[in-house]
Formats: sequence, C-alpha cells, structure tokens
Amino acid sequence: MTARAREVIQAADLVIGNGLYLDQVAPLLAGKEVIRSSMGKEVDRARQAVELACSRAVAVVSGGDPGVYGMASIVLEVLDRSGLDVPVEVVPGVTAATAAASRLGAPLSGDFVVISLSDLLTPWEEIERRLGLAFSMGVPVVLYNPRSRGRQDHLAVALGIAAEHLPPETPVGFVKDAYRVGEAITVTTLAEAPARIGEADMHSTIVIGGIGSRIWRKGKDAKGIITPRGYERKYLY
Amino acid sequence: MTARAREVIQAADLVIGNGLYLDQVAPLLAGKEVIRSSMGKEVDRARQAVELACSRAVAVVSGGDPGVYGMASIVLEVLDRSGLDVPVEVVPGVTAATAAASRLGAPLSGDFVVISLSDLLTPWEEIERRLGLAFSMGVPVVLYNPRSRGRQDHLAVALGIAAEHLPPETPVGFVKDAYRVGEAITVTTLAEAPARIGEADMHSTIVIGGIGSRIWRKGKDAKGIITPRGYERKYLY
Repeated sequence: MTARAREVIQAADLVIGNGLYLDQVAPLLAGKEVIRSSMGKEVDRARQAVELACSRAVAVVSGGDPGVYGMASIVLEVLDRSGLDVPVEVVPGVTAATAAASRLGAPLSGDFVVISLSDLLTPWEEIERRLGLAFSMGVPVVLYNPRSRGRQDHLAVALGIAAEHLPPETPVGFVKDAYRVGEAITVTTLAEAPARIGEADMHSTIVIGGIGSRIWRKGKDAKGIITPRGYERKYLY
Repeated sequence: MTARAREVIQAADLVIGNGLYLDQVAPLLAGKEVIRSSMGKEVDRARQAVELACSRAVAVVSGGDPGVYGMASIVLEVLDRSGLDVPVEVVPGVTAATAAASRLGAPLSGDFVVISLSDLLTPWEEIERRLGLAFSMGVPVVLYNPRSRGRQDHLAVALGIAAEHLPPETPVGFVKDAYRVGEAITVTTLAEAPARIGEADMHSTIVIGGIGSRIWRKGKDAKGIITPRGYERKYLY
C-alpha cells in the first residue's frame, strides 16, 4: 500500500468497499463508519459513495490500483452524470500485473499488454480478438480474471491463442493472491500450462512471456521469469 | 511509495540509483552509503549492485515500478549470469501508466497496452509494428519515453499510427512528472495532439484513449479522461 492510500483512508469519515478489500485494511478502520459491499454491486456502491460524499469524507477501497479493473471509473462516471460538484481524488496503487511480475522476477520489463478474461462487461468475441492482436505483438501479456466458476474455459482458449503466436517453451507464470495470505506461484511453459489450469482461480494473475522471455532459476528450487530488455545486444556482461 | 519500498531502503546498508531517483528518497538516505549513477549506466550499476550485495544489504532504486522499464530485469540478468547465490527481492511500485492515469481520472479502467517509444534497446521498426497492433486493439495505449533530445519525431509518428485506427475525437492525455515537482497535465484529442507535442518531454507519459474513452470535465476548468468499463450496457445510473 502507498503512503498516500493510507493517509486518505485515515482521513476518511466513511469507508466503502468489497469486504475482501476492507478486511485487508482492517487496522485502519477503527472508529470509522464502514459500508461493506459485495461483488457485482459496483454501480450501487459508486452511487452510494457519491451521495455520501456530498456531506462527508468518503474513501472507496479497491484492491491493487483502483484505476485498473477497479472502482475509479464507475465512481467518476456516476459523479459526472450526477452533476454534483464533489471534489474527488484517484489514488494509484500497485496493480496486479506488476505485483505478480515482481513475484516472478522481471517478466514485464518493457512493453506489455493487460487483458481481462471476464466477459461480464466485454463480449467474449471482442476479448478473443484483442488476445490475437496482443499475442502477435510478441510482448508479455498479463491476464486478469483468468477463471471463475461461471467461466471454466476462458484461460484454456487464451492459452490456445497464445500458442498460435508464440513458441511452446514461452514461460508462463500463475500468481495467486500476490502478497496476500495463500500466495502461490507456478512457473511453467506455454506447452505445459493447459495441464496446470486447475491452479488458477479468480484471484490469480497470469503472465505469459513474450519473444525473448525465459525461465530463470531462482536459487535452488524456485523458478521465475525474466524478459531481457535488450542490453545484451549492446553490452557485454 | 509503498510501505515495503520504504522498509527495504531503510534496512539497506548501501543504496544505488540514478541521481534523479535518489533525490526523491533523500530523507531515507541519512547515514547510508549512497552510489549515484547516471542514465545509460544501467549495466554497470547492476553489476556493481550484485558484487556489493555479496557482503552487504544493497537497495537499487528505480522510479515507478522497477519491473517496468526499470532496473529489475538487468539486475536479475546480471545476477543470473554471475552464478552468485545472493538473495534478491523485487519490490513492486506504482508504474507511470497508472500514476498518470490517476491524474487524468480513469482512462485505463480495463484492458490496456504499455509501449515505450525509446529505440535505444528496441529497433524502431519493431516499435512501429507493435503500435499498429496495439491501436487496432481499440483499447487505451500508454506511451513511455515519448520524446527526448535525440528523438523528436517518435511521438508524432505514434500519434499518426493511432489516427489510422481511432477517431479524431479520441482523448489524449499528456502527464509530465506525475506526483513530482513540476507536474503538468494536458488533455486534448487525437486530432489536436500533434500540435501539442512540444508539451511532452522524457519525463512525460502519454495516454491515448481507446474506443469508448471520453473527455470528462473535472470541476469548472480542468479536464480528464474516463474509459467506461461497460456498466452502462448493463445498468441504469
């Protein structure tokens, strides 16, 4: 968490969020009014936050960075349509792409693409089209929301599209609950990844390497992923 | 800055980094040995950090997230080739893409692409190819290193490629030195952006909206960018 996120929560009269994220900041919530919301209630939560912010200091909590698949855009949309003149600040955070990357080593390092496999708000055909273009860029691709009870096969389809554009030895990292209780990291290859899909869930972030990404042996037992930035073409080291 | 980044710097005996980034953490450096390096010396800096880390606690400082166009990958590469058994931790941070986005409002919100316009380590033809694929995805694209003394025209070319795929009213945000002294924000459109290129420098991050991104009037005078996530197709608000 950034120092600014902590300050903003501490200065708030009222904190609204999904219970999962509120639990992670529980020590900061003492003495505050807290409204626990649930998945799928984002529009109601945003509306409530904007209404309450007319008279009180309200903090809306998201996991990772609120601007990336988080609450920032819906809060700003609701505020904009309301016509209310309420000051608002979006506090950036560490998004799952770079949190997961740091646990794997340095798989992103340069250009990369972020795509969610959730088709709740984007049609699946459009997601498939984006995946094809993203993998043909040859840069690492980070998949958010790779799997949920309602969507068992999205990750398998995405890995299949990746395999049309990238070699079978391309490294793939699964990072579940990065920096949270129950963190689990799997490093495999594009060829082997379909057999490991069971290890991903809705809290996982998947990093599929690009051209040049390679598996890196971290100490004796662990593996990670490095995507060289290209220094090796210019320097000896 | 995250709490973990602060802890790691505080626990280090020796801190190595580009002078620009060391200055930003000056209050944390009292009583520590500090090695100031300069732009273009990344390989030497990584090599020095790995050697010194055999006997001391060394922190290598990057701006933003060290895993994204930062020092993490070159440090891990040098460490890997050295064969030394030195424990290493990559501490994630807030990368310029989401820092800039938060100052603009919520322009990313869903899928997005990150591309650097620096051709120091990637051939320019390859960057152009990636830009074409990225803009044809129709999602927001964040440009790092948009301009430097040696590269005056890269941003103009990138905006031209964007204009082949996106409508002229597509919002474009220039964010210079997000959250730093001298911060400056410009919100314009793809049609008008070429005339504003002089406002970008090597410390700027450029956010080019996707299909659906729109300019948002922040209060009386300021403008921002929102990319709706798609709730408007499912809910009334």
